[in-house]
Amino acid sequence: MATLDLDPAAGAFDPADLQRTLDGRYADLRARIREVMSRPEFEPPVEISREAYRALVMDWARRLAADGMTAPGFPVQYGGEGDFGANVAGFETIAFGDLSLLVKFGVQFGLFGGAVQQLGTAAHHERYLRDIASLRLPGCFAMSEAAHGSDVQNLLTTATYDRDTGEFVIDTPIDAAHKDYIGGAARDGRMAVVFAQLHVGTQSHGVHALLVPIRDEHGSVLDGVRIEDDGYKLGLNGVDNGKLWFDHVRVPRENLLDRWGGVSTDGVYSSPIENPTKRFFTMVGALVQGRVCVSGASVSAAELALTIAVRHGLRRRQFGPDPGHEVPILDYRVHQRRLLPRLARTYALHFAQAELRERFHRVMSAPEEVSDRERRELESLAAGMKATASWHATDTIQACREACGGAGYMAVNRFAALKADTDIFTTFEGDNVVLMLLLARGLLTGFAEQFTGLSPVAMASFLAGQAAEVVVERLFARKIAQVVGDWVGGDEEDLLDPAVQLALFQWREGHITASAAQRFRRHIKDGHAPFEVFRSIEDHVVDVARAHMATVQLEAFRRAVRDAPEGPVRAALSQMCALFALSEIEREKGFYQEHGRLSGPRCKAVSRRVGELCERIRARAGAYVDAFGIPDAVLRAPIALAGEER
Amino acid sequence: MATLDLDPAAGAFDPADLQRTLDGRYADLRARIREVMSRPEFEPPVEISREAYRALVMDWARRLAADGMTAPGFPVQYGGEGDFGANVAGFETIAFGDLSLLVKFGVQFGLFGGAVQQLGTAAHHERYLRDIASLRLPGCFAMSEAAHGSDVQNLLTTATYDRDTGEFVIDTPIDAAHKDYIGGAARDGRMAVVFAQLHVGTQSHGVHALLVPIRDEHGSVLDGVRIEDDGYKLGLNGVDNGKLWFDHVRVPRENLLDRWGGVSTDGVYSSPIENPTKRFFTMVGALVQGRVCVSGASVSAAELALTIAVRHGLRRRQFGPDPGHEVPILDYRVHQRRLLPRLARTYALHFAQAELRERFHRVMSAPEEVSDRERRELESLAAGMKATASWHATDTIQACREACGGAGYMAVNRFAALKADTDIFTTFEGDNVVLMLLLARGLLTGFAEQFTGLSPVAMASFLAGQAAEVVVERLFARKIAQVVGDWVGGDEEDLLDPAVQLALFQWREGHITASAAQRFRRHIKDGHAPFEVFRSIEDHVVDVARAHMATVQLEAFRRAVRDAPEGPVRAALSQMCALFALSEIEREKGFYQEHGRLSGPRCKAVSRRVGELCERIRARAGAYVDAFGIPDAVLRAPIALAGEER
Repeated sequence: MATLDLDPAAGAFDPADLQRTLDGRYADLRARIREVMSRPEFEPPVEISREAYRALVMDWARRLAADGMTAPGFPVQYGGEGDFGANVAGFETIAFGDLSLLVKFGVQFGLFGGAVQQLGTAAHHERYLRDIASLRLPGCFAMSEAAHGSDVQNLLTTATYDRDTGEFVIDTPIDAAHKDYIGGAARDGRMAVVFAQLHVGTQSHGVHALLVPIRDEHGSVLDGVRIEDDGYKLGLNGVDNGKLWFDHVRVPRENLLDRWGGVSTDGVYSSPIENPTKRFFTMVGALVQGRVCVSGASVSAAELALTIAVRHGLRRRQFGPDPGHEVPILDYRVHQRRLLPRLARTYALHFAQAELRERFHRVMSAPEEVSDRERRELESLAAGMKATASWHATDTIQACREACGGAGYMAVNRFAALKADTDIFTTFEGDNVVLMLLLARGLLTGFAEQFTGLSPVAMASFLAGQAAEVVVERLFARKIAQVVGDWVGGDEEDLLDPAVQLALFQWREGHITASAAQRFRRHIKDGHAPFEVFRSIEDHVVDVARAHMATVQLEAFRRAVRDAPEGPVRAALSQMCALFALSEIEREKGFYQEHGRLSGPRCKAVSRRVGELCERIRARAGAYVDAFGIPDAVLRAPIALAGEER
Repeated sequence: MATLDLDPAAGAFDPADLQRTLDGRYADLRARIREVMSRPEFEPPVEISREAYRALVMDWARRLAADGMTAPGFPVQYGGEGDFGANVAGFETIAFGDLSLLVKFGVQFGLFGGAVQQLGTAAHHERYLRDIASLRLPGCFAMSEAAHGSDVQNLLTTATYDRDTGEFVIDTPIDAAHKDYIGGAARDGRMAVVFAQLHVGTQSHGVHALLVPIRDEHGSVLDGVRIEDDGYKLGLNGVDNGKLWFDHVRVPRENLLDRWGGVSTDGVYSSPIENPTKRFFTMVGALVQGRVCVSGASVSAAELALTIAVRHGLRRRQFGPDPGHEVPILDYRVHQRRLLPRLARTYALHFAQAELRERFHRVMSAPEEVSDRERRELESLAAGMKATASWHATDTIQACREACGGAGYMAVNRFAALKADTDIFTTFEGDNVVLMLLLARGLLTGFAEQFTGLSPVAMASFLAGQAAEVVVERLFARKIAQVVGDWVGGDEEDLLDPAVQLALFQWREGHITASAAQRFRRHIKDGHAPFEVFRSIEDHVVDVARAHMATVQLEAFRRAVRDAPEGPVRAALSQMCALFALSEIEREKGFYQEHGRLSGPRCKAVSRRVGELCERIRARAGAYVDAFGIPDAVLRAPIALAGEER
């Protein structure tokens, strides 16, 4: 039996030290928000009617606004701190509290405010940002339509310029074009950023955003606007989602958010970006914050769930060598296997999120200094992280709920809301599958300048135009050079070598990417229609993105280990990083063997190592979750408190 | 590109024909219940307060009782039909409706009524069954305690015989021994079947069940009983779960359900079963119906979710070769991969459930003719099916919700309740992991007579006493003989041969079982403490159960194909069975390669076949879900109705 010599002192670390590494440079902001979330009045309701919940959430949002905590990303003169990264870090920390508040907050200050900030120009900022930050102007972000969710480029709402009056006419041309799932629409919103196809004269200029008032200051719906409540939802019932129809609603010319395209009084359209497809992706790209925030909130939700489940696993005793000696359920291998690899993945995502946040901060803080390529890389990474982290949250919260048994089913222990509220994270801000395809597109084309459309046809045609090997070489030359030779059957100790682990991740990514690109090319050459080719290998393409995101996580985790203070904290992270790497390799052992990269005995060795690492990490499991820094007053789940038995 | 010659007529079948096969011999009962569930008044509420929901559910249950549909398993003279299988089939069909009603129904007629029927004797039947079936006597099933959920053998509540008064004294000795999560306790229950350690004189006789009144006929809580509402739950809020404490509550001697152990007036304990451990497992085994029912309801819930998601996938169009030609999202390979292998697994489980139901019916209908071994096999199968089907439901409902995007998040489309209500299926009626260990115990010991305890120590000791090979041989000799030789690299067509598929399943099960047994034995021989051995290989032991359940499903599916009417129905099932088998093999490709059973190229061929089968089944996907026979009036989800676009 593989036993470990576990020196009780070995591997001990102070969770407060590890927390400092996890909190990173926004530790002060996070501490401030933790304090607010700890206040009794911010306790998430366990059971509440929809109307009362909506009112409570609006009240909470107003309190945060009164405290000036709503929009650190706005310029200082409009109530912010001019710090884009702080926007994200704040959102990540609020996510430990009520998630309807989080989403309400995100809609108002992130999506609505962010659209005005990113798509509008100085006059819009001057006129609106202050009122948005203070919540004097509650707004909506009206992008999705019933018939077009993730396919924004083809939405149907129109904004037609009327030269005679200098107004835009906003219209919902067919019923399926109504805006749907719009947060703030059903109850609180006064104004909406509406995405519509812009028509000037006989010309269409593609999707643009306009500010459209929907209610007066008394809350009455304005003429020409029709609103329906979306009704009860699976979760997030403190957010007032609704549907919006526009019947030839007129807004002044100035209401067009015209940073990327404007119309003069006499009806001349102009834009700093000539190519309409590029313009569209630039506009949408400017809204990347939403995905960065959802990714961060997903990681926080997984941290919260794991904190509850791990603490419960340490306190709850069942079975044992005999009835008088029951053991903590986290001592059972199955329980460890259920929670600890997910804990390792949460750590990996935490650090990947920190890098995403930094990259976002850099791009947004100095847009003029940033290349198109950097911007697109940010968008790809945000898409991949949002999908990866939200799927991880769904999976982890479910595992944690089950690990807490019947107690986990009681709403007071938080999984009820956590599960329900985060469920939509895999869908909103872009359906995860569509986002993974978007990321894969970037990977497969090497962000080629000539290819900026989302259309699968264009993607297929582009790829058909060059040898797959060229694409792959350009992308992975550096990485493939790092890959060690075929060490099937080599020395078992290699498995714990971080360089070997990383090489395996990179080998997988490179191999999947190359083979997907080759399939594209072969089928196109064989004369198949591009769309059919895309359709038939779509699952392979998603795997490209998945493999890439695994590498992204491991690389981020390794950099975090490298940058951590030498000593117990670095050792603790190093151990967790090994569990992450090996449990991912174990999960993909089918692939590694299929492609002759790992032998059967090596795969078995990987599984043994995962088991051993689980035992080691179990010995410090309480400290590892304490380091997430969720105060008891924020955690609130009774099964995770009263720690005397730990 | 692997394209298929899809003759539009090929593979067509009438869903009504396939439904007949799926409905099986309880088609009439199912039709009757579908009719009831279709009535407008049985519409599941989308948004309702807890108290109103509880009242509504109780009202529904009374309507079913008034219709005489509550307990077909009861003897005819007490309002039933003496048909145990009908109990299960009815439950499976009610599961298409509101799941709080389902669980309320299950608690009253299945758990409470079932305990009186199975653990009580003629006097109890005569006195109580009629009132239970009619709901004049609403009851509870008070087994789980706060500190002991799945470990029933060690629960702490006591029932002490007082010879002076001829009464039992029911007591909750410490706070952690209170009964918890008891359906019916918080609001409606008048009487509870309480599981307690039976003490007579100085002797303890282990866990027995007693009838304990908890409320009077006006609904007032009786003296000595304390009840607390469990409050708001993740789901099933139409069921009134609560906690129960007993403070020396006295009940007459006759209230002991004494089929498996009674006490005479002068305090002499007697039982038809000498061995206390065997007695305990016999009593618990008599309650197997609960697990059989949860397994069936899980399959129904998956069928409901897939019906909604597949229909939506056929109606909803997004993207496409160009904006004018959007395609149904089920045409996308990723969407197919998400839904169709789960559809295949649902079919497999449907047939495995039918076999479980039949076996249950046989054992319960003629208990005197059934061997201990058959009884234990039923219990093992029920444990494994409950765990497998409930995990499958959780996984499938989640995939379906995501596949329906934002629309799937609207409560009106049913996933909100489906997700929340079924979530606890993995925990109640025995935690899934514990159940899988229970099943594995049976598999590893070959149901040896000398081993009936659940204790891991005993299990380890038993296994140590004999060569693993002997255990394995005895269990798998027949199966292993069927396994074809090592055909790594053989002809690709073999993969579609059902015999080859089954051989792969059986080989996997045999291999995992043998190696787990060997590890047990080796570690014990090496002098490790039995509990430590158990703890360290527990995940391997769970794999034994998983592999077994995969074989169970495939065998059941194959028998269903064999027994189906020749022609289109059999062809349709045969195709679905192939998708089930190959997608399971694909999922386990890591294992098959690790153990040299399949080569890399063979695994790739498996994946190709899965992709092709998905395309074929997609062509008839609507008919495959229509065959589940869920009427639109029961389905109710708007996104799954209005089928003109299909």
